[in-house]
Amino acid sequence: MGGDRAPQIVIDGADIIAQSNPDVHFSLFGDENKIIPIIQNCHNLKDRYTIFNTEEFISADEKPSIALRRYTKSSMRLAIDSVKDKQCDVVVSAGNTGALMAIAKVVLRPLESIDRPAIVTSIPNQKNQATVLLDMGANIDCDGDVLYQFAVMGHAFARVVLKIDNPKIGLLNVGSEELKGHEELKIAASYIKESHLKDDFYGYVEGDDIMKGTVDVVVTDGFTGNITLKTIEGSVKMIASLFKEAFTDSIFSKIGYLFCGPSITKKTRSVDPRMHNGAMLVGLNGVVVKSHGSTDRIGFANAIKVAISLLDNNINEKIIEELSIKPKKPSLEEFKE
Amino acid sequence: MGGDRAPQIVIDGADIIAQSNPDVHFSLFGDENKIIPIIQNCHNLKDRYTIFNTEEFISADEKPSIALRRYTKSSMRLAIDSVKDKQCDVVVSAGNTGALMAIAKVVLRPLESIDRPAIVTSIPNQKNQATVLLDMGANIDCDGDVLYQFAVMGHAFARVVLKIDNPKIGLLNVGSEELKGHEELKIAASYIKESHLKDDFYGYVEGDDIMKGTVDVVVTDGFTGNITLKTIEGSVKMIASLFKEAFTDSIFSKIGYLFCGPSITKKTRSVDPRMHNGAMLVGLNGVVVKSHGSTDRIGFANAIKVAISLLDNNINEKIIEELSIKPKKPSLEEFKE
Repeated sequence: MGGDRAPQIVIDGADIIAQSNPDVHFSLFGDENKIIPIIQNCHNLKDRYTIFNTEEFISADEKPSIALRRYTKSSMRLAIDSVKDKQCDVVVSAGNTGALMAIAKVVLRPLESIDRPAIVTSIPNQKNQATVLLDMGANIDCDGDVLYQFAVMGHAFARVVLKIDNPKIGLLNVGSEELKGHEELKIAASYIKESHLKDDFYGYVEGDDIMKGTVDVVVTDGFTGNITLKTIEGSVKMIASLFKEAFTDSIFSKIGYLFCGPSITKKTRSVDPRMHNGAMLVGLNGVVVKSHGSTDRIGFANAIKVAISLLDNNINEKIIEELSIKPKKPSLEEFKE
Repeated sequence: MGGDRAPQIVIDGADIIAQSNPDVHFSLFGDENKIIPIIQNCHNLKDRYTIFNTEEFISADEKPSIALRRYTKSSMRLAIDSVKDKQCDVVVSAGNTGALMAIAKVVLRPLESIDRPAIVTSIPNQKNQATVLLDMGANIDCDGDVLYQFAVMGHAFARVVLKIDNPKIGLLNVGSEELKGHEELKIAASYIKESHLKDDFYGYVEGDDIMKGTVDVVVTDGFTGNITLKTIEGSVKMIASLFKEAFTDSIFSKIGYLFCGPSITKKTRSVDPRMHNGAMLVGLNGVVVKSHGSTDRIGFANAIKVAISLLDNNINEKIIEELSIKPKKPSLEEFKE
């Protein structure tokens, strides 16, 4: 029931996935009065879904703490409960991100040796690949230990989802020598250098390295990560709108667009946010995938695809395995000049 | 002597400004053996410049602390000294940002009641206007007091440079209710609400609000600001390169570009980084403007234009005036829930 056009795009997205994934069964949590009229037109889903009826749902602007305490029969809560109870393997939601993380943390619990689950996503880069970025906003203040755990989880995510054998890891920082960022970044860097990730550690990266694709995994705290992601979204939208204005600016530009439109569609497909929809709430006992609230059925289908890929590749088992290789903790003197 | 193509673009930029500003005299600090051959071709500058010869210069990767201590005869140092000694009214440099700030702070000293000078710039937004953004990287850790001072300086900058009477101020933060960012942001918000800026305070803004133009001034610490600015640069470059690829993708798209090229040039001119070149080191006893190191003569000329506008409008007097209106310091309880 979450997102701007639920449950329509959720059900339509499931229908798309149902076609190419004959083994998947869909549990739909929400108001059956709204679900049934839509699902009757979804032929791929026929006999492959179960509706768990509830009229309670969490609105987009509900406070996570209230969502957690008050809405124990909400569609989101029941869906997460079903993963805990092993009724479902994974939950995909386009709803309130803060509420989703808060409920998932309490119901599913963090993985052992993970202090703070994070939100991880991947965004297109200039190398026609994707850059994994975490944390996207679950944890505002992060110490070196937490950032190190993010590096481990991001590394595993890049291997599983992007199929990169040795993903390079960068810590997001500022450029100038003298201003080399917060102490916790230095601590995180020293942990990574002491760990099994050391050969895949690139070092510090800057804001423009995300889109350049300098590294495969960019690690940052949730404050910077959230602002960075939204800044990218804002920049892409702005440039796209300028080009759109240009193509409708005159009769000449309209004619021009007739000729170059197909190439533009082809080349900019990689930055279509729908194709990168589906952020994982990583570090939990269970797989939870968050879809953008404003996506359409194509985008939601992609989020389901991400969820299936995470399951098929045993993402959590891989993270647990990597986390069990504990790095030697460097002494404080090592990173203080 | 600073920047990728110095002193060529610096002198060429000055020549452009000389043409439209007959009252400006240019003091050029650097290697006369390199300056003289270039300046002989600059007819607008004829009889309107003085060369201060020095062979010492600060490289782009020099540490600010070393630049400050060791290079006391560098072109950058002598230029800043000349502002201190009232030989010049303003200094414009395309050199090492960290060194420029370090030297300017020691030589010119911060304005009274400014704890930390900042780097302020303006970037184009979707409303065909510009958003003022600070700090761009001079101060990594900022408390509420410092962020409040940034708001005052950014507000004055927007009024002077962008000619906005009542510029709206936003504090850069993350979206989710529960995760409402660092404590210092709450403190800064409460200071602003108690100050003469209260009617111009919009509240918290998110990353995408920068390009949307939701507010005129976006205030953030130097860590987030630097990463945000570089993320925007990276995003714009990536999208631009995708469109460039599309326009050369086939014979059809090449033909199309012939028709829509002029409209595209017109519409995207506003995001040309050269047109927004010139960041002020704000909060110092003296006006210092930083040009992007990789700009060309058009961009450098724009940085000089910014410098002249700051002087003509008595930016520092206005900031001092605004700072003298001290807000009532709210009690700690007020911003703790």
